[in-house]
Amino acid sequence: MSLPENYSIRRMVSSDYDRGVLTTLEALTVVGTISKYQFQALVNKWESLELNNGKFMYNPTVIVDGDDTVVATGMILIEEKLIHQCGLVGHIEDIAVRKDQQGKQLGKILINHLTQIGKDAGCYKIILDCDPKNVGFYEKCGYKNNGLEMEIRQ
Amino acid sequence: MSLPENYSIRRMVSSDYDRGVLTTLEALTVVGTISKYQFQALVNKWESLELNNGKFMYNPTVIVDGDDTVVATGMILIEEKLIHQCGLVGHIEDIAVRKDQQGKQLGKILINHLTQIGKDAGCYKIILDCDPKNVGFYEKCGYKNNGLEMEIRQ
Repeated sequence: MSLPENYSIRRMVSSDYDRGVLTTLEALTVVGTISKYQFQALVNKWESLELNNGKFMYNPTVIVDGDDTVVATGMILIEEKLIHQCGLVGHIEDIAVRKDQQGKQLGKILINHLTQIGKDAGCYKIILDCDPKNVGFYEKCGYKNNGLEMEIRQ
Repeated sequence: MSLPENYSIRRMVSSDYDRGVLTTLEALTVVGTISKYQFQALVNKWESLELNNGKFMYNPTVIVDGDDTVVATGMILIEEKLIHQCGLVGHIEDIAVRKDQQGKQLGKILINHLTQIGKDAGCYKIILDCDPKNVGFYEKCGYKNNGLEMEIRQ
């Protein structure tokens, strides 16, 4: 399983605003209006936050195609806990792949890449929440069901 | 619904190491050996991390009884996202109540308190993962099921 020719996967950077990362995120949910300044401030903040082992706390990631457009994106946020001897847990969040890019295994490549970032940082577990219809996809990525997600909105 | 007389709920502080917070966490899972220095370093780090709106990113919380012992603890970690117009999502984690303190509604008071911290910080949603057998408890706290938790361990 590898990226199509001329595609690359890497950490999100400030200039990805102009590569359409917000349009890609719209494949997932409502994004709303975010100025270039707001985007860059958040990306810079994510870049500044380190775990005690020097790895990044926030790991926003993009797949870019041969036209230098962001076609997929995802995040692994790494939490520093007390349990498991000050252990680390990775939270995979906000996976989005452009609809016209389906069938290229970009989602699976992205999940495997984010999972590896979490493992390299030393996470004892990595978790994510998903719709029941996507369980098969995540099982192919090595994940197992371990409970239910509960939510409250305001 | 209120705390028993002489009980209080507040943010975790460095000196909670000596109030038995780690023993309380053992009601949840493996904690292992954590030195006072390691504990204080993590609590201080949690204290130092702020959201863009000045609220805390990590909100470790304890309930202390009339003997000044930590009898319950829980966390809400607040994530800064791009989606929902640079929206915030709260992650409730690591809820533990000492077994000899059951029946006093401490779990419910703790969840409501953490939920309020998330709402006050401006989270558009607050999520948590739980065992299917605990769904009824979280429904009483206002939460609804919204999907499945998937995990991978190393």
